[in-house]
This record gives sequence, structure tokens and C-alpha cells, in this order.
Amino acid sequence: METRSSTVSDQKSEESEPLPISEYVRELVSKAQRATRKLASLSTSTKNQALLTMAEALVAKSDELLAANERDLEAFGTTPGNKAMADRLRLTEKRIGEMAAGIREVEKLPDPVGMMSTMWTRPNGMQVGRVRVPIGVIGIIYESRPNVTADSAALCLKSGNVCVLRGGSEAIHSNTTIAGILAEASEQAGVPSGAITFVDRVDREVVPVLLKQDRFIDLIIPRGGESLMTLIAEHSTIPVIKHDAGVCHVYVDAAADASMAEAICINAKAQRPSTCNAMETLLLHQSIARTLLPKLATSLKAANVEIRGCPKTCQVLSDAKPASEQDYGKEFLDLILAVKIVKNMDEAMEHIAQYGSRHTEAIVTTDYGRAMRFLKEVDAGAVLVNASTRLNDGYQFGLGAEIGISTSRIHARGPMGLEELTCSKFIVLGSGQLRE
Amino acid sequence: METRSSTVSDQKSEESEPLPISEYVRELVSKAQRATRKLASLSTSTKNQALLTMAEALVAKSDELLAANERDLEAFGTTPGNKAMADRLRLTEKRIGEMAAGIREVEKLPDPVGMMSTMWTRPNGMQVGRVRVPIGVIGIIYESRPNVTADSAALCLKSGNVCVLRGGSEAIHSNTTIAGILAEASEQAGVPSGAITFVDRVDREVVPVLLKQDRFIDLIIPRGGESLMTLIAEHSTIPVIKHDAGVCHVYVDAAADASMAEAICINAKAQRPSTCNAMETLLLHQSIARTLLPKLATSLKAANVEIRGCPKTCQVLSDAKPASEQDYGKEFLDLILAVKIVKNMDEAMEHIAQYGSRHTEAIVTTDYGRAMRFLKEVDAGAVLVNASTRLNDGYQFGLGAEIGISTSRIHARGPMGLEELTCSKFIVLGSGQLRE
Repeated sequence: METRSSTVSDQKSEESEPLPISEYVRELVSKAQRATRKLASLSTSTKNQALLTMAEALVAKSDELLAANERDLEAFGTTPGNKAMADRLRLTEKRIGEMAAGIREVEKLPDPVGMMSTMWTRPNGMQVGRVRVPIGVIGIIYESRPNVTADSAALCLKSGNVCVLRGGSEAIHSNTTIAGILAEASEQAGVPSGAITFVDRVDREVVPVLLKQDRFIDLIIPRGGESLMTLIAEHSTIPVIKHDAGVCHVYVDAAADASMAEAICINAKAQRPSTCNAMETLLLHQSIARTLLPKLATSLKAANVEIRGCPKTCQVLSDAKPASEQDYGKEFLDLILAVKIVKNMDEAMEHIAQYGSRHTEAIVTTDYGRAMRFLKEVDAGAVLVNASTRLNDGYQFGLGAEIGISTSRIHARGPMGLEELTCSKFIVLGSGQLRE
Repeated sequence: METRSSTVSDQKSEESEPLPISEYVRELVSKAQRATRKLASLSTSTKNQALLTMAEALVAKSDELLAANERDLEAFGTTPGNKAMADRLRLTEKRIGEMAAGIREVEKLPDPVGMMSTMWTRPNGMQVGRVRVPIGVIGIIYESRPNVTADSAALCLKSGNVCVLRGGSEAIHSNTTIAGILAEASEQAGVPSGAITFVDRVDREVVPVLLKQDRFIDLIIPRGGESLMTLIAEHSTIPVIKHDAGVCHVYVDAAADASMAEAICINAKAQRPSTCNAMETLLLHQSIARTLLPKLATSLKAANVEIRGCPKTCQVLSDAKPASEQDYGKEFLDLILAVKIVKNMDEAMEHIAQYGSRHTEAIVTTDYGRAMRFLKEVDAGAVLVNASTRLNDGYQFGLGAEIGISTSRIHARGPMGLEELTCSKFIVLGSGQLRE
């Protein structure tokens, strides 16, 4: 490997005894913390130049990157059972190009640091405003997809935040290489060393230790499955914004346009099933099940989707596999779809409240009143009318970018863009005002 | 006591064995959780009517309230050492009137639930917007000041949130009475039972148990001292927005207007020393120390403020007590002021970075460049130029109200008003859009 990220273990020869985990983590995060003041004060043009240099370096070193990814893929293996996971892990020239393009998109976005939306004057004459400032050090703990490394580094840099990145062990070679290329390129452009910090030791004990570094890390953003979320809930003394599972539903109403419903269902399920905003359960109004379901099932089958149906679904589709109770509320992340026929929208909304993860919920209908009621009453990060759940995404929503889709209720909910990576401070321009 | 809040222990006769703490807390918070759906769907006019009824009831029952407060004050005692704390605890007719007026102010504020600041159209034609929705159940853990009970209940109700209130044991009679009056009045106006929940058992084990109820409570807002914050950091599995100590500085620059500096310092220190936004340390530029300090010291002494000075301060003020290292970074919450003479603004900003709690920081200067630099480089929830630190407050800033001053960097920082008590959901109005 030609390029390496700036990590503590670099300072040791490969022969020497590795540092104890707690010391390794402490050195890494305290170095990261030391980069905050310089990073927060960098000009927008310096940050932008660094982003362009980073994008260029990724493409220039794509051979190195593909070789590292190949090592990860070999170690991971590809059985039919983990095909979706392998798909998330795989890098190609195209995906590297997309990563670089993603970084260039971030370069074009407005710098959120220093933004002030309004300033108002109080009766006593003092002017009050709210200015966006970096959060500080953001720890990002994620699984599988190596593009998260590049996305996270670019978004944190643009928003003036130091990032401490911890990827999944299955992508360790890909991630180490990406982070190394980006850190090196950013430093060439004037970004302080430590601003892009990658945790390059795969030991399982690293994460619990990382989660206790509240003196050095201001926010943890985890992106992954249930076991990661449980680990973090148990150990973190640092504020957390979760990027948790998506158990997303599409409810096809009695008054749905049949061809629109079919197109949305195919897209929501099959366009990229391994993502958190893919549909996992289809809820279908009973009055249109017999006319819509057979045609929809044919299209789903053509897209290799396995249907697991409720008893009524199995009556309509004689070859459908019966759904078990566990199939509802399950994040398949694969070409599997649970289907349930419901009496009415109330039953659909109750099902969503009971089994959904409050991530993304959609209705297909031509009825105005039911569309408005669904929007108002369904509780989720994003609620859509007549659109695919797959559109719940920072780019698609026009935020310019996203570091993920928050399933927390605090600070940010739904797609999290650059602005959500900052916090605010109040500023007051006075002329001698006192409290009376 | 005539009025009682709706709590589990009400259901037991006073003779019977009390419930184990874990069962008591679980019953209380699960009842609170059950109130969320109805509360979230209440109309603004119902919520407003409830607030007016609550304000009226507080005033109508002020005798009952004063009697309860007297019991707390007797138990607390008043030695010179805890005079500031006793001041925070004391209720008077005037303060009860202020509490009621505070609730009526909340009634007049716009309802944040359902607010949508902008809606935008994407190139594919779908419209995307962000709607404010209640957070859910908010647990508020606080010390001393009984008005927090009324403020919190009113703000949570207006923003559609259920509150679970846990006050300090020293104010248990005052708080139980306030919460009881408010819960009863709100229910008369159509608010579901449980929406204003008060934890009426003072056992120390209650808080750790409360902090694990992440299935039922969505957010914890603690308002208190260091030991409370440590307890919460150790035990909470629920997201927390801290309302922590304020170690606030005023830096009087070389180019300060002397009479403005004096007025701001007296106000920041002495107007209400027991609050988190009172000045604790004065930083004074060396070039004006000899001219400003003697006159300022006379005014501070007239306001009964004890000065603890650095060696240079003690040279100028021969009767000043020398400051110890522990006096810097200390939240006195009393009529005590640490004073330090600094070489220049850089030394002042370094002192603030080292000893401050990032709560409220102010500069007094007529120099434009230094004012702008101080605003940009000092990291705090509020940074003020030529205004008293005491103005860092939701009412003073025009937020209409505040539930406290957040010292967290996430979700809300500085005064936290109604909008900060909500989260958002994205809504999408589509016409068949798919992800490409």
C-alpha cells in the first residue's frame, strides 16, 4: 500500500508491540481534538481546494483502491446468502468515480460555517443573531459501504468538523486506503493533520473505548444494524445521532392509480434493495388487491423479488410464500417483500405504528383527504405521497449531500446534510444594554 | 394539600407499602407515554385554553402554594452560606404572579407544531418540506427553583410534548403543589391525564431508574449543578440536552467606554447572582486597570460584591482578597467576583477557553475589529458585545420563552424556546416520482 492515513500505529514499526487499545484510541482522538481550532478557522476556499485535491487523488489512485477492495472481497466471500452485503462492499471504477464526484459536489455546496439566517432587533435596541459553527469532533461508526468513508470525510471537512472514522472490519483495506488517500491529499492543501482520522485497528474492543472519549469527541454518528445500535446505547457517554434500520412501508390505497402504484412498488423494492430506504412491507387496500396484486406480483417476480404474503395475499397469489409474524417489521435488505392486505387506511397506519422503524413511509393515492391525513398522522423521518421511498435521501431532497439518514428525534431527523453537521451560537451586538 | 398531581402513588392509600422504585417509575412513564398521541393531535386552541386555565388556577390557589413553599423553606433553613440558594427556592405572591404571567405568555406564542418554514420543488417535480412535530416525552430534571415546574409544563404542553418533571427534594412540597394544580387545570380543559407528570417520590434511586426509560422517554433535559450532570452522563440511555453551569466572563477591553463597562459589570454580577448567566470572572485590560478598577470596585462593594483578585488586581486594590487558582472557572452563584488583569485580548480569550464553560461570554469595547474577532473566535452558546451577560435568556432574546439555556452542542445551544422543543419530519408531495 503506497498511501496510508495518519494514524498512531504508523509511528510504530510493524515488528514492535502494538499499543494497548485504550492508549491507541486516546492518542488518536486527542490528536483529532487538537486539529479542531485550526480546522474551524480555515477559509472556505482552502477547504474547497482540499476537497478538489481529495477527489482527484481518489481517481488517480483507483488501481490501488481496487486492489485493496479485492482483498476485502476475497476475505468476505460471496455466497448467495450474503450477495446483498457483498454488493454494498464492492468498489468499481464507476463507484470510485461516483465517490470523487460526490466530493466535488460537496465542494460546490455553500459553506455552512458562519451562516446567519436572520438577525433581529429587540425593543432595547440590541441585535440578536444565530451563527452556524462546527460541532467539533464527530465520530462516525459504520458498516460495509466504503463510500461512507469518502462521503463522511468530505462533509465533515466542509462543515469545519474533525472526523474520527471507524469502518467495518470487512472493509478494512478499502477504508484504510480511501482514508489514507484523502488525509494525505487534504494535508497537501493546508488541512491540519488529524482532521481526517481513521481508526485502523479492527479489534472489537476499540468501539467501546471510543464511545467513552467524551472529552475529545462531541458527537457519534453510527450507521449500521441493530447490534451496533445496542452496543452504542450501552457504552456511549457521547451524544449520538443514530442512523438505524429502515423498515419502510408503501401503503397502496383504494383510490391509487394502478400503474403509478406498480412503478413505485417496483422502484421502492428493487432499485437497490440493500439500502435503508427500500420498501420492506407492502400494505394493500383490500378493494384493489384482486385487480392490482396479480399484475404487480408478475412484475416483482420479473425483478427477482420473493413475496411473503398474509393469508389473504396467498389466496390471491397461489404461489406466494406465507409470511411469518417475524417478516413484518424485518429489514430484509434483500429482494424479499412482505405483503399484507388491509381493510382500510387506519389498519395500514396502525400496522406502520406497530412494525415500522419511523424511517420512511409512503402512500399511493389519488384521494386528497387521505393523502393529507397520512402526511399528518404517520410519524416518520420522511412521509411521502405518490413517490418512491427510495427518494428519502439528502441528494434527492436537494440538501446537496447527506452523511446519512438520522433515525434520532433530536438535532436532525431524516437526511442529514451539511447544515445538520453544525451547531449554532447566539451573537449579540449591543450598545450598553442591561437586564432590568 | 387540596390539589395533587396525577401520580401513581395517589392510587395507594398512605398506609400501604410503597411500590418498589422501578415499578413506580415504570408505571409513571408508561402512563406519560400513553398520553403522547392524544396530546400531539390537540388543536392549538385547546392547548391555549388549557394554558389560560392553568395560569388562573395558580393565582387562585396561591395561598395553598405559599403554605407548601413555607414548608420547603423551613426544612431548608437560611444560614448566610445558603442565602443565594434560599432565594432561588422562595415563592412570593409576586413570583406566583410571574409564573402565571409566564404561562400566559406561552399561550400567546405561535404553536410550533405543524410549522413549515419552506417547501421547495425538486427538478423531478416533487415538492419537499419540513414540518415541526413534537419530540414526544421529555424528562426534565432540575434543582431548586420551583418556577421551573410551571415553565416546563407550559412549554412542553404548547409544543405538544408530554413532560415528566423531577424537581429537587428541597422544593418537593412547592413542586408537587404546582404540578398538581397545573395537571388538574389542564385536564379540565381537555389535556390527557399523564401529559403533565410529576415524580413525587424524593428517593435518590428514582433518577438513575428514570434515566434508563428510553422506551418511554425521548429526551432528558437536566438543569442543575455538576453532580447532577455527572449522574446523568453515567446513567442515561436517553438523549440529553444539558443545562449546565455557567462560568461567564466579561472582558473589558483597552478601548472600552468606562461608564458602560461599569454598568455592564455591576449588572452582570449583581442583578441576580444566583443565575447561570451571571458574570463570575472579570477580565480587565492592563492599560485601563488603574483608571477603571478603583471606581468599579467602589460600585461593586456598594452592591455587596466580594472581589478576589489576581496579584496585579491586588496591587491596584489594596483591600482585595487574593484569588486562588480555584476561583477561576468557579460558578460562585453568589456575590463573589474573580478579577484578572490581562495583557491583551488574546490572553483574555485564552483564559476564557481554559476556564469558561462555553455558556455566555461578553466583551466591552469601542474597537470594531476586536469586537468582530471576539464574536468570531470565542466559542460559547452566546457571545455578546457591549451588553450584560444576564441578557442571554430566551425572553430577552425574543424567543418568547425558554425552558433553559442549553450547554449541549447538539439540537439546541443557548436559550431553548418552543421551536427547540420540537423535531421535524420531511414531507413529500409527489406525482409518481421514482429513484433513477
